[in-house]
Amino acid sequence: MPETIGFIGLGIMGQPMAHNLRKAGFPLIVHNRHPEVTEQFIAAGAQAAKSAREIAAASDIVITMLPDTAVVEQVLSGPDGVIEGAHDGLIVIDMSTISPVATRALAALLAQHNVSMLDAPVSGGDKGAIDGTLSIMVGGQKETFTRCLPVFQAMGTTIVHVGDHGAGQTVKACNQIVVALIFEAISEALVLGSKAGVDPARIIQVLGGGLAASRILELRGATMVAHNFAPGGRIRFHHKDLGIVLETARTYGVSLPVTALVDQMFASLELRGRGDLDHSALLTYLEDLSSHRIGSG
Amino acid sequence: MPETIGFIGLGIMGQPMAHNLRKAGFPLIVHNRHPEVTEQFIAAGAQAAKSAREIAAASDIVITMLPDTAVVEQVLSGPDGVIEGAHDGLIVIDMSTISPVATRALAALLAQHNVSMLDAPVSGGDKGAIDGTLSIMVGGQKETFTRCLPVFQAMGTTIVHVGDHGAGQTVKACNQIVVALIFEAISEALVLGSKAGVDPARIIQVLGGGLAASRILELRGATMVAHNFAPGGRIRFHHKDLGIVLETARTYGVSLPVTALVDQMFASLELRGRGDLDHSALLTYLEDLSSHRIGSG
Repeated sequence: MPETIGFIGLGIMGQPMAHNLRKAGFPLIVHNRHPEVTEQFIAAGAQAAKSAREIAAASDIVITMLPDTAVVEQVLSGPDGVIEGAHDGLIVIDMSTISPVATRALAALLAQHNVSMLDAPVSGGDKGAIDGTLSIMVGGQKETFTRCLPVFQAMGTTIVHVGDHGAGQTVKACNQIVVALIFEAISEALVLGSKAGVDPARIIQVLGGGLAASRILELRGATMVAHNFAPGGRIRFHHKDLGIVLETARTYGVSLPVTALVDQMFASLELRGRGDLDHSALLTYLEDLSSHRIGSG
Repeated sequence: MPETIGFIGLGIMGQPMAHNLRKAGFPLIVHNRHPEVTEQFIAAGAQAAKSAREIAAASDIVITMLPDTAVVEQVLSGPDGVIEGAHDGLIVIDMSTISPVATRALAALLAQHNVSMLDAPVSGGDKGAIDGTLSIMVGGQKETFTRCLPVFQAMGTTIVHVGDHGAGQTVKACNQIVVALIFEAISEALVLGSKAGVDPARIIQVLGGGLAASRILELRGATMVAHNFAPGGRIRFHHKDLGIVLETARTYGVSLPVTALVDQMFASLELRGRGDLDHSALLTYLEDLSSHRIGSG
Protein backbone atom coordinates (compact mmCIF):
# COMPACT_ATOMS: atom_id res chain seq x y z
CA MET A 1 0.00 0.00 0.00
CA PRO A 2 1.44 3.40 -0.94
CA GLU A 3 2.71 5.58 1.85
CA THR A 4 0.73 8.63 2.94
CA ILE A 5 2.48 11.84 1.97
CA GLY A 6 2.13 15.15 3.76
CA PHE A 7 2.96 18.07 1.45
CA ILE A 8 3.84 21.49 2.85
CA GLY A 9 4.36 24.41 0.44
CA LEU A 10 1.96 24.51 -2.51
CA GLY A 11 3.56 27.30 -4.52
CA ILE A 12 4.39 27.55 -8.23
CA MET A 13 6.53 24.37 -7.96
CA GLY A 14 4.83 22.57 -5.05
CA GLN A 15 1.34 22.52 -6.56
CA PRO A 16 2.15 20.54 -9.71
CA MET A 17 4.55 18.28 -7.76
CA ALA A 18 1.79 17.42 -5.26
CA HIS A 19 -0.70 16.81 -8.07
CA ASN A 20 1.72 14.37 -9.70
CA LEU A 21 2.04 12.46 -6.39
CA ARG A 22 -1.74 12.28 -6.14
CA LYS A 23 -2.05 11.07 -9.75
CA ALA A 24 0.56 8.36 -8.99
CA GLY A 25 -1.76 7.04 -6.27
CA PHE A 26 -0.20 8.39 -3.07
CA PRO A 27 -2.73 9.41 -0.37
CA LEU A 28 -2.04 13.11 0.16
CA ILE A 29 -2.42 15.49 3.11
CA VAL A 30 -1.72 19.14 2.44
CA HIS A 31 -1.20 22.31 4.40
CA ASN A 32 -0.86 25.76 2.91
CA ARG A 33 -1.22 29.39 3.95
CA HIS A 34 -3.79 30.10 1.23
CA PRO A 35 -7.14 28.29 1.84
CA GLU A 36 -8.15 28.49 -1.86
CA VAL A 37 -5.16 26.31 -2.79
CA THR A 38 -6.00 23.81 -0.04
CA GLU A 39 -9.63 23.66 -1.23
CA GLN A 40 -8.53 22.89 -4.75
CA PHE A 41 -6.57 19.89 -3.44
CA ILE A 42 -9.50 18.73 -1.27
CA ALA A 43 -11.70 18.84 -4.38
CA ALA A 44 -9.16 16.58 -6.11
CA GLY A 45 -9.30 14.00 -3.29
CA ALA A 46 -6.59 15.13 -0.88
CA GLN A 47 -7.04 15.67 2.85
CA ALA A 48 -6.15 18.93 4.59
CA ALA A 49 -4.44 19.52 7.91
CA LYS A 50 -4.32 22.64 10.10
CA SER A 51 -0.59 22.61 10.83
CA ALA A 52 2.74 21.02 10.01
CA ARG A 53 2.44 19.18 13.36
CA GLU A 54 -0.85 17.58 12.28
CA ILE A 55 0.60 16.65 8.88
CA ALA A 56 3.59 14.95 10.49
CA ALA A 57 1.36 12.97 12.85
CA ALA A 58 -0.80 11.67 9.98
CA SER A 59 1.90 10.97 7.34
CA ASP A 60 4.59 8.40 6.55
CA ILE A 61 6.58 10.94 4.55
CA VAL A 62 6.51 14.74 4.84
CA ILE A 63 7.66 16.76 1.81
CA THR A 64 8.52 20.44 2.19
CA MET A 65 8.77 22.79 -0.81
CA LEU A 66 9.34 26.20 0.79
CA PRO A 67 10.93 29.53 -0.14
CA ASP A 68 14.06 29.65 2.03
CA THR A 69 16.16 28.26 4.90
CA ALA A 70 14.36 30.24 7.62
CA VAL A 71 10.90 28.99 6.58
CA VAL A 72 12.08 25.37 6.39
CA GLU A 73 13.62 25.66 9.89
CA GLN A 74 10.38 27.19 11.20
CA VAL A 75 8.15 24.49 9.65
CA LEU A 76 10.36 21.62 10.83
CA SER A 77 11.49 22.74 14.31
CA GLY A 78 9.26 25.73 15.18
CA PRO A 79 6.00 25.78 17.21
CA ASP A 80 3.30 23.49 15.77
CA GLY A 81 6.02 22.18 13.45
CA VAL A 82 6.93 18.74 12.10
CA ILE A 83 9.08 17.71 15.07
CA GLU A 84 6.17 18.30 17.46
CA GLY A 85 4.05 15.83 15.46
CA ALA A 86 6.86 13.39 14.67
CA HIS A 87 6.60 9.62 15.17
CA ASP A 88 9.24 6.90 14.91
CA GLY A 89 10.09 6.13 11.30
CA LEU A 90 8.84 9.41 9.87
CA ILE A 91 10.77 10.60 6.81
CA VAL A 92 11.16 14.28 5.93
CA ILE A 93 12.10 15.12 2.34
CA ASP A 94 13.03 18.78 1.95
CA MET A 95 12.76 19.66 -1.74
CA SER A 96 13.23 23.41 -1.19
CA THR A 97 16.50 25.08 -2.20
CA ILE A 98 18.22 26.00 1.06
CA SER A 99 21.69 26.07 2.63
CA PRO A 100 23.64 22.75 2.59
CA VAL A 101 25.17 23.75 5.95
CA ALA A 102 21.74 24.38 7.58
CA THR A 103 20.51 21.13 6.00
CA ARG A 104 23.17 19.11 7.84
CA ALA A 105 22.14 20.71 11.15
CA LEU A 106 18.44 19.98 10.50
CA ALA A 107 19.18 16.35 9.58
CA ALA A 108 21.07 15.92 12.89
CA LEU A 109 18.23 17.54 14.86
CA LEU A 110 15.57 15.36 13.19
CA ALA A 111 17.67 12.23 13.82
CA GLN A 112 17.42 12.97 17.58
CA HIS A 113 13.63 12.54 17.15
CA ASN A 114 14.04 9.30 15.13
CA VAL A 115 13.12 11.14 11.92
CA SER A 116 15.17 10.45 8.75
CA MET A 117 15.77 13.39 6.43
CA LEU A 118 16.61 13.64 2.76
CA ASP A 119 17.53 16.90 1.06
CA ALA A 120 16.14 16.64 -2.47
CA PRO A 121 16.13 19.97 -4.33
CA VAL A 122 15.05 20.01 -7.96
CA SER A 123 15.93 21.56 -11.29
CA GLY A 124 13.70 21.94 -14.33
CA GLY A 125 11.46 24.83 -13.36
CA ASP A 126 7.66 24.96 -13.32
CA LYS A 127 7.58 23.19 -16.69
CA GLY A 128 9.53 20.23 -15.29
CA ALA A 129 7.29 20.22 -12.19
CA ILE A 130 4.11 20.13 -14.31
CA ASP A 131 5.41 17.47 -16.73
CA GLY A 132 6.88 15.34 -13.91
CA THR A 133 10.30 15.56 -15.55
CA LEU A 134 12.26 17.28 -12.78
CA SER A 135 15.92 16.56 -12.15
CA ILE A 136 16.13 15.62 -8.43
CA MET A 137 19.44 15.63 -6.55
CA VAL A 138 19.23 13.74 -3.28
CA GLY A 139 21.44 13.83 -0.17
CA GLY A 140 21.07 11.54 2.86
CA GLN A 141 21.24 7.86 3.74
CA LYS A 142 21.15 5.45 0.80
CA GLU A 143 18.46 3.20 2.34
CA THR A 144 16.12 6.15 2.93
CA PHE A 145 16.73 7.23 -0.67
CA THR A 146 15.90 3.74 -1.98
CA ARG A 147 12.69 3.60 0.05
CA CYS A 148 11.58 7.00 -1.30
CA LEU A 149 12.47 6.30 -4.94
CA PRO A 150 8.82 5.66 -6.02
CA VAL A 151 7.91 9.05 -4.54
CA PHE A 152 10.65 10.80 -6.54
CA GLN A 153 9.70 8.89 -9.69
CA ALA A 154 6.22 10.46 -9.54
CA MET A 155 7.81 13.92 -9.86
CA GLY A 156 11.02 13.56 -11.87
CA THR A 157 13.00 11.62 -14.45
CA THR A 158 16.67 12.23 -13.54
CA ILE A 159 16.88 11.11 -9.90
CA VAL A 160 20.36 10.75 -8.43
CA HIS A 161 21.57 9.99 -4.91
CA VAL A 162 24.56 12.34 -4.80
CA GLY A 163 25.90 11.74 -1.26
CA ASP A 164 25.22 12.23 2.43
CA HIS A 165 23.09 14.94 4.11
CA GLY A 166 23.54 18.30 2.37
CA ALA A 167 24.96 16.83 -0.85
CA GLY A 168 21.66 17.39 -2.67
CA GLN A 169 21.69 21.07 -1.71
CA THR A 170 25.37 21.31 -2.71
CA VAL A 171 24.61 19.96 -6.18
CA LYS A 172 21.63 22.33 -6.44
CA ALA A 173 24.03 25.17 -5.62
CA CYS A 174 26.26 23.93 -8.48
CA ASN A 175 23.21 23.84 -10.76
CA GLN A 176 22.27 27.45 -9.91
CA ILE A 177 25.82 28.61 -10.70
CA VAL A 178 25.66 27.02 -14.14
CA VAL A 179 22.16 28.30 -14.94
CA ALA A 180 23.04 31.89 -13.91
CA LEU A 181 26.28 31.90 -15.89
CA ILE A 182 24.63 30.48 -19.02
CA PHE A 183 22.08 33.33 -18.89
CA GLU A 184 25.01 35.74 -18.56
CA ALA A 185 26.76 34.07 -21.52
CA ILE A 186 23.73 34.30 -23.80
CA SER A 187 23.06 37.90 -22.70
CA GLU A 188 26.60 39.13 -23.45
CA ALA A 189 26.49 37.35 -26.83
CA LEU A 190 23.10 38.81 -27.79
CA VAL A 191 24.04 42.39 -26.89
CA LEU A 192 27.33 42.19 -28.84
CA GLY A 193 25.77 40.57 -31.88
CA SER A 194 22.75 42.85 -31.94
CA LYS A 195 24.72 46.09 -31.51
CA ALA A 196 27.08 44.91 -34.30
CA GLY A 197 24.02 44.65 -36.55
CA VAL A 198 23.01 40.98 -36.58
CA ASP A 199 19.40 39.81 -36.06
CA PRO A 200 19.30 38.25 -32.54
CA ALA A 201 16.96 35.48 -33.74
CA ARG A 202 19.65 34.33 -36.19
CA ILE A 203 22.23 34.29 -33.39
CA ILE A 204 19.97 32.03 -31.28
CA GLN A 205 19.40 29.75 -34.26
CA VAL A 206 23.08 29.29 -35.13
CA LEU A 207 24.34 28.97 -31.55
CA GLY A 208 21.77 26.25 -30.92
CA GLY A 209 23.30 24.13 -33.70
CA GLY A 210 26.85 24.04 -32.35
CA LEU A 211 29.05 23.77 -29.28
CA ALA A 212 27.23 26.72 -27.67
CA ALA A 213 23.92 24.80 -27.49
CA SER A 214 22.21 24.52 -24.11
CA ARG A 215 18.84 23.65 -22.60
CA ILE A 216 18.49 27.30 -21.56
CA LEU A 217 19.11 28.59 -25.10
CA GLU A 218 16.49 26.11 -26.33
CA LEU A 219 13.86 27.04 -23.72
CA ARG A 220 14.57 30.76 -23.28
CA GLY A 221 16.46 31.98 -26.36
CA ALA A 222 13.34 33.04 -28.25
CA THR A 223 11.64 34.59 -25.20
CA MET A 224 14.80 36.60 -24.45
CA VAL A 225 14.83 37.92 -28.02
CA ALA A 226 11.13 38.83 -27.61
CA HIS A 227 11.81 40.50 -24.23
CA ASN A 228 9.21 38.19 -22.68
CA PHE A 229 10.32 37.84 -19.05
CA ALA A 230 7.23 36.17 -17.53
CA PRO A 231 8.49 33.74 -14.87
CA GLY A 232 9.49 30.79 -14.73
CA GLY A 233 12.29 31.16 -12.25
CA ARG A 234 12.29 34.61 -10.70
CA ILE A 235 15.35 36.85 -10.37
CA ARG A 236 14.78 37.26 -6.64
CA PHE A 237 14.79 33.48 -6.06
CA HIS A 238 17.90 33.00 -8.17
CA HIS A 239 19.54 35.88 -6.28
CA LYS A 240 18.62 34.13 -3.02
CA ASP A 241 20.13 30.88 -4.39
CA LEU A 242 23.40 32.60 -5.32
CA GLY A 243 23.49 33.89 -1.73
CA ILE A 244 23.43 30.23 -0.62
CA VAL A 245 26.11 29.42 -3.19
CA LEU A 246 28.44 32.16 -1.93
CA GLU A 247 27.78 31.30 1.74
CA THR A 248 28.62 27.65 0.95
CA ALA A 249 31.75 28.75 -0.91
CA ARG A 250 32.80 30.78 2.14
CA THR A 251 32.22 27.79 4.46
CA TYR A 252 34.25 25.34 2.37
CA GLY A 253 36.89 27.77 1.11
CA VAL A 254 36.15 28.24 -2.58
CA SER A 255 36.74 31.33 -4.75
CA LEU A 256 33.99 31.93 -7.36
CA PRO A 257 34.78 35.18 -9.19
CA VAL A 258 32.13 35.07 -11.91
CA THR A 259 29.34 33.74 -9.68
CA ALA A 260 30.05 36.62 -7.28
CA LEU A 261 29.84 39.12 -10.15
CA VAL A 262 26.58 37.72 -11.53
CA ASP A 263 25.16 37.67 -7.97
CA GLN A 264 25.74 41.43 -7.86
CA MET A 265 24.00 41.81 -11.22
CA PHE A 266 20.93 40.00 -9.83
CA ALA A 267 21.17 42.22 -6.71
CA SER A 268 21.08 45.34 -8.85
CA LEU A 269 18.15 44.07 -10.94
CA GLU A 270 16.19 43.31 -7.77
CA LEU A 271 17.01 46.75 -6.30
CA ARG A 272 15.71 48.30 -9.51
CA GLY A 273 12.34 46.53 -9.23
CA ARG A 274 12.95 43.60 -11.58
CA GLY A 275 13.03 40.83 -8.93
CA ASP A 276 9.81 39.23 -10.12
CA LEU A 277 10.90 38.96 -13.74
CA ASP A 278 12.22 35.64 -15.05
CA HIS A 279 15.96 35.16 -14.44
CA SER A 280 16.49 35.43 -18.22
CA ALA A 281 15.95 39.17 -17.64
CA LEU A 282 19.63 39.21 -16.69
CA LEU A 283 19.74 40.26 -20.36
CA THR A 284 18.37 43.68 -19.36
CA TYR A 285 21.36 44.26 -17.05
CA LEU A 286 23.71 43.78 -20.00
CA GLU A 287 21.51 45.91 -22.27
CA ASP A 288 21.59 48.73 -19.71
CA LEU A 289 25.41 48.56 -19.57
CA SER A 290 25.65 49.27 -23.31
CA SER A 291 22.53 51.49 -23.69
CA HIS A 292 21.22 49.06 -26.28
CA ARG A 293 18.05 47.04 -26.49
CA ILE A 294 18.60 43.93 -28.62
CA GLY A 295 16.79 43.81 -31.93
CA SER A 296 16.33 47.58 -31.98
CA GLY A 297 18.73 47.88 -34.97
CA MET B 1 29.40 19.88 -63.01
CA PRO B 2 30.68 20.61 -59.50
CA GLU B 3 32.84 23.66 -59.06
CA THR B 4 36.58 23.31 -58.48
CA ILE B 5 37.52 24.24 -54.96
CA GLY B 6 40.90 25.54 -53.86
CA PHE B 7 41.52 24.88 -50.17
CA ILE B 8 44.15 26.84 -48.23
CA GLY B 9 44.92 25.87 -44.62
CA LEU B 10 44.94 22.13 -43.93
CA GLY B 11 45.20 22.19 -40.13
CA ILE B 12 43.28 20.26 -37.48
CA MET B 13 39.99 21.67 -38.86
CA GLY B 14 40.89 22.25 -42.52
CA GLN B 15 42.02 18.69 -43.26
CA PRO B 16 38.76 16.91 -42.43
CA MET B 17 36.72 19.73 -44.03
CA ALA B 18 38.69 19.38 -47.29
CA HIS B 19 38.31 15.59 -47.20
CA ASN B 20 34.54 15.96 -46.85
CA LEU B 21 34.47 18.25 -49.91
CA ARG B 22 36.47 15.69 -51.88
CA LYS B 23 34.13 12.86 -50.78
CA ALA B 24 31.15 14.99 -51.88
CA GLY B 25 32.63 15.04 -55.41
CA PHE B 26 34.21 18.50 -55.62
CA PRO B 27 37.48 18.63 -57.61
CA LEU B 28 40.02 19.87 -55.06
CA ILE B 29 43.25 21.87 -55.30
CA VAL B 30 45.22 22.30 -52.11
CA HIS B 31 48.10 24.36 -50.83
CA ASN B 32 49.74 23.94 -47.45
CA ARG B 33 53.03 24.76 -45.73
CA HIS B 34 53.69 21.11 -44.84
CA PRO B 35 54.43 18.93 -47.94
CA GLU B 36 53.44 15.68 -46.13
CA VAL B 37 49.88 16.98 -45.75
CA THR B 38 49.76 18.00 -49.42
CA GLU B 39 51.04 14.55 -50.47
CA GLN B 40 48.31 12.86 -48.46
CA PHE B 41 45.72 14.84 -50.40
CA ILE B 42 47.39 14.10 -53.75
CA ALA B 43 47.25 10.39 -52.86
CA ALA B 44 43.50 10.82 -52.26
CA GLY B 45 42.98 12.36 -55.70
CA ALA B 46 43.43 16.10 -55.12
CA GLN B 47 45.73 18.39 -57.08
CA ALA B 48 48.39 20.57 -55.47
CA ALA B 49 49.38 24.14 -56.19
CA LYS B 50 52.53 26.07 -55.25
CA SER B 51 50.87 29.25 -54.04
CA ALA B 52 47.59 30.93 -53.18
CA ARG B 53 47.91 32.79 -56.48
CA GLU B 54 48.03 29.50 -58.43
CA ILE B 55 45.08 28.14 -56.47
CA ALA B 56 42.99 31.23 -57.22
CA ALA B 57 43.78 31.01 -60.91
CA ALA B 58 42.71 27.35 -61.13
CA SER B 59 39.59 27.41 -58.87
CA ASP B 60 35.97 28.56 -59.00
CA ILE B 61 35.84 28.89 -55.21
CA VAL B 62 38.75 29.43 -52.81
CA ILE B 63 38.25 28.38 -49.17
CA THR B 64 40.62 29.66 -46.47
CA MET B 65 40.84 28.03 -43.04
CA LEU B 66 43.70 29.88 -41.37
CA PRO B 67 44.84 30.76 -37.83
CA ASP B 68 44.25 34.52 -37.59
CA THR B 69 43.41 37.84 -39.25
CA ALA B 70 47.01 38.61 -40.29
CA VAL B 71 47.48 35.28 -42.09
CA VAL B 72 44.15 35.62 -43.92
CA GLU B 73 45.10 39.16 -45.04
CA GLN B 74 48.51 37.88 -46.20
CA VAL B 75 47.06 34.93 -48.16
CA LEU B 76 44.34 37.04 -49.80
CA SER B 77 46.11 40.33 -50.52
CA GLY B 78 49.83 39.64 -49.98
CA PRO B 79 52.48 38.69 -52.57
CA ASP B 80 51.64 35.52 -54.52
CA GLY B 81 48.22 35.76 -52.89
CA VAL B 82 44.65 35.12 -54.04
CA ILE B 83 44.09 38.60 -55.51
CA GLU B 84 47.14 38.20 -57.79
CA GLY B 85 45.57 35.04 -59.25
CA ALA B 86 41.98 36.27 -59.20
CA HIS B 87 39.64 36.02 -62.20
CA ASP B 88 36.15 37.46 -62.73
CA GLY B 89 33.52 35.53 -60.79
CA LEU B 90 35.92 33.98 -58.30
CA ILE B 91 34.39 33.42 -54.88
CA VAL B 92 36.46 33.47 -51.67
CA ILE B 93 34.95 31.78 -48.60
CA ASP B 94 36.93 32.56 -45.46
CA MET B 95 36.05 29.93 -42.85
CA SER B 96 38.74 31.06 -40.38
CA THR B 97 37.77 32.88 -37.20
CA ILE B 98 38.97 36.47 -37.67
CA SER B 99 37.88 40.04 -36.98
CA PRO B 100 34.43 41.08 -38.35
CA VAL B 101 35.85 44.57 -38.91
CA ALA B 102 38.83 43.29 -40.95
CA THR B 103 36.45 40.98 -42.82
CA ARG B 104 34.41 43.94 -44.06
CA ALA B 105 37.59 45.64 -45.33
CA LEU B 106 38.73 42.45 -47.11
CA ALA B 107 35.31 41.98 -48.75
CA ALA B 108 35.49 45.55 -50.09
CA LEU B 109 39.03 45.04 -51.40
CA LEU B 110 38.11 41.74 -53.12
CA ALA B 111 35.03 43.36 -54.68
CA GLN B 112 37.38 45.83 -56.44
CA HIS B 113 38.89 42.77 -58.20
CA ASN B 114 35.43 41.33 -59.06
CA VAL B 115 35.81 38.67 -56.38
CA SER B 116 32.81 37.90 -54.11
CA MET B 117 33.58 37.05 -50.51
CA LEU B 118 31.67 35.16 -47.84
CA ASP B 119 32.77 35.00 -44.20
CA ALA B 120 31.75 31.56 -42.97
CA PRO B 121 33.33 30.63 -39.64
CA VAL B 122 32.31 27.36 -38.02
CA SER B 123 31.49 25.86 -34.65
CA GLY B 124 31.59 22.21 -33.66
CA GLY B 125 35.30 21.55 -33.23
CA ASP B 126 37.44 18.86 -34.84
CA LYS B 127 34.69 16.30 -34.17
CA GLY B 128 32.15 18.37 -36.13
CA ALA B 129 34.70 18.87 -38.92
CA ILE B 130 35.38 15.12 -39.19
CA ASP B 131 31.70 14.12 -39.04
CA GLY B 132 30.63 16.89 -41.44
CA THR B 133 28.24 18.27 -38.82
CA LEU B 134 29.67 21.76 -38.37
CA SER B 135 27.49 24.75 -37.58
CA ILE B 136 28.36 27.35 -40.27
CA MET B 137 27.46 31.03 -39.85
CA VAL B 138 27.67 32.93 -43.12
CA GLY B 139 27.94 36.64 -43.85
CA GLY B 140 27.85 38.22 -47.33
CA GLN B 141 25.50 38.53 -50.29
CA LYS B 142 22.50 36.22 -50.28
CA GLU B 143 22.98 35.09 -53.92
CA THR B 144 26.61 34.13 -53.28
CA PHE B 145 25.47 32.20 -50.19
CA THR B 146 22.81 30.34 -52.20
CA ARG B 147 25.30 29.42 -54.92
CA CYS B 148 27.75 28.06 -52.31
CA LEU B 149 25.15 26.11 -50.28
CA PRO B 150 26.13 22.69 -51.73
CA VAL B 151 29.72 23.41 -50.68
CA PHE B 152 28.65 24.19 -47.11
CA GLN B 153 26.36 21.14 -47.02
CA ALA B 154 29.39 18.90 -47.59
CA MET B 155 30.90 20.18 -44.33
CA GLY B 156 28.06 21.09 -41.99
CA THR B 157 24.46 20.54 -40.94
CA THR B 158 23.36 23.88 -39.41
CA ILE B 159 24.06 26.41 -42.18
CA VAL B 160 22.61 29.88 -41.70
CA HIS B 161 22.99 33.09 -43.70
CA VAL B 162 23.15 35.57 -40.81
CA GLY B 163 23.58 38.88 -42.65
CA ASP B 164 25.94 40.99 -44.75
CA HIS B 165 29.78 40.89 -44.83
CA GLY B 166 31.19 40.38 -41.32
CA ALA B 167 27.95 39.04 -39.84
CA GLY B 168 29.27 35.47 -39.88
CA GLN B 169 32.33 36.54 -37.90
CA THR B 170 30.12 38.53 -35.52
CA VAL B 171 27.99 35.47 -34.78
CA LYS B 172 31.15 33.39 -34.33
CA ALA B 173 32.30 35.98 -31.79
CA CYS B 174 28.95 35.50 -29.99
CA ASN B 175 29.48 31.74 -30.11
CA GLN B 176 32.95 32.03 -28.55
CA ILE B 177 31.55 34.17 -25.70
CA VAL B 178 28.96 31.52 -24.89
CA VAL B 179 31.38 28.59 -25.11
CA ALA B 180 33.96 30.31 -22.86
CA LEU B 181 31.38 31.29 -20.25
CA ILE B 182 29.82 27.81 -20.16
CA PHE B 183 33.28 26.37 -19.43
CA GLU B 184 33.62 28.96 -16.66
CA ALA B 185 30.16 28.01 -15.32
CA ILE B 186 30.92 24.28 -15.20
CA SER B 187 34.35 24.94 -13.67
CA GLU B 188 33.03 27.10 -10.81
CA ALA B 189 30.31 24.51 -10.13
CA LEU B 190 32.72 21.57 -10.09
CA VAL B 191 35.20 23.24 -7.74
CA LEU B 192 32.46 24.26 -5.29
CA GLY B 193 30.76 20.87 -5.33
CA SER B 194 33.97 18.90 -5.08
CA LYS B 195 35.45 20.95 -2.24
CA ALA B 196 32.11 20.62 -0.38
CA GLY B 197 32.55 16.84 -0.62
CA VAL B 198 30.41 15.73 -3.59
CA ASP B 199 31.73 13.36 -6.28
CA PRO B 200 32.22 15.52 -9.44
CA ALA B 201 30.93 12.71 -11.68
CA ARG B 202 27.57 12.86 -9.87
CA ILE B 203 27.44 16.62 -10.35
CA ILE B 204 27.93 16.21 -14.12
CA GLN B 205 25.27 13.50 -14.21
CA VAL B 206 22.59 15.53 -12.40
CA LEU B 207 23.31 18.84 -14.12
CA GLY B 208 23.00 17.12 -17.49
CA GLY B 209 19.41 16.12 -16.67
CA GLY B 210 18.07 19.61 -15.90
CA LEU B 211 18.07 23.25 -16.88
CA ALA B 212 21.90 23.35 -16.60
CA ALA B 213 22.33 20.90 -19.50
CA SER B 214 24.54 21.93 -22.41
CA ARG B 215 26.36 20.46 -25.38
CA ILE B 216 29.66 21.29 -23.63
CA LEU B 217 28.67 19.46 -20.43
CA GLU B 218 27.74 16.48 -22.58
CA LEU B 219 30.96 16.45 -24.62
CA ARG B 220 33.45 17.66 -22.02
CA GLY B 221 31.98 17.03 -18.54
CA ALA B 222 33.53 13.59 -18.13
CA THR B 223 36.91 14.63 -19.57
CA MET B 224 37.03 17.64 -17.23
CA VAL B 225 36.37 15.35 -14.24
CA ALA B 226 39.16 13.07 -15.53
CA HIS B 227 41.53 16.05 -16.03
CA ASN B 228 41.93 15.00 -19.66
CA PHE B 229 42.71 18.25 -21.49
CA ALA B 230 43.83 16.88 -24.87
CA PRO B 231 42.58 19.37 -27.53
CA GLY B 232 39.96 19.87 -29.19
CA GLY B 233 39.89 23.61 -29.11
CA ARG B 234 43.06 25.05 -27.63
CA ILE B 235 43.20 27.71 -24.91
CA ARG B 236 45.47 29.90 -27.06
CA PHE B 237 42.98 29.90 -29.96
CA HIS B 238 40.05 30.65 -27.70
CA HIS B 239 42.10 33.43 -26.07
CA LYS B 240 42.78 34.81 -29.56
CA ASP B 241 39.03 34.61 -30.31
CA LEU B 242 38.12 36.53 -27.15
CA GLY B 243 40.61 39.17 -28.29
CA ILE B 244 38.51 39.51 -31.47
CA VAL B 245 35.33 39.61 -29.34
CA LEU B 246 36.64 42.44 -27.14
CA GLU B 247 38.00 44.37 -30.14
CA THR B 248 34.59 44.05 -31.82
CA ALA B 249 32.88 45.16 -28.60
CA ARG B 250 35.15 48.21 -28.49
CA THR B 251 34.36 49.05 -32.13
CA TYR B 252 30.57 48.83 -31.70
CA GLY B 253 30.37 50.15 -28.12
CA VAL B 254 29.45 47.13 -26.00
CA SER B 255 30.40 46.40 -22.39
CA LEU B 256 31.11 42.70 -21.70
CA PRO B 257 32.22 42.36 -18.06
CA VAL B 258 32.33 38.57 -17.77
CA THR B 259 33.84 37.95 -21.20
CA ALA B 260 36.62 40.41 -20.29
CA LEU B 261 37.26 38.55 -17.02
CA VAL B 262 37.35 35.11 -18.64
CA ASP B 263 39.65 36.53 -21.35
CA GLN B 264 42.11 37.41 -18.58
CA MET B 265 41.81 33.89 -17.18
CA PHE B 266 42.74 32.44 -20.58
CA ALA B 267 45.62 34.98 -20.74
CA SER B 268 46.96 33.78 -17.41
CA LEU B 269 46.66 30.10 -18.38
CA GLU B 270 48.57 30.79 -21.60
CA LEU B 271 51.27 32.74 -19.72
CA ARG B 272 51.66 29.77 -17.40
CA GLY B 273 52.31 27.34 -20.27
CA ARG B 274 48.81 25.87 -20.67
CA GLY B 275 47.94 27.46 -24.05
CA ASP B 276 47.96 24.14 -25.92
CA LEU B 277 45.58 22.42 -23.53
CA ASP B 278 41.90 22.12 -24.46
CA HIS B 279 39.82 25.17 -23.46
CA SER B 280 38.07 23.01 -20.88
CA ALA B 281 41.32 23.40 -18.88
CA LEU B 282 39.81 26.72 -17.77
CA LEU B 283 38.87 24.40 -14.88
CA THR B 284 42.50 24.46 -13.72
CA TYR B 285 42.37 28.25 -13.32
CA LEU B 286 39.46 27.87 -10.88
CA GLU B 287 41.15 24.96 -9.11
CA ASP B 288 44.29 27.07 -8.62
CA LEU B 289 42.21 29.90 -7.10
CA SER B 290 40.92 27.59 -4.36
CA SER B 291 43.99 25.31 -4.02
CA HIS B 292 41.77 22.33 -4.78
CA ARG B 293 41.92 19.69 -7.47
CA ILE B 294 38.44 18.30 -8.13
CA GLY B 295 37.83 14.71 -7.10
CA SER B 296 40.78 14.75 -4.69
CA GLY B 297 38.43 14.31 -1.71
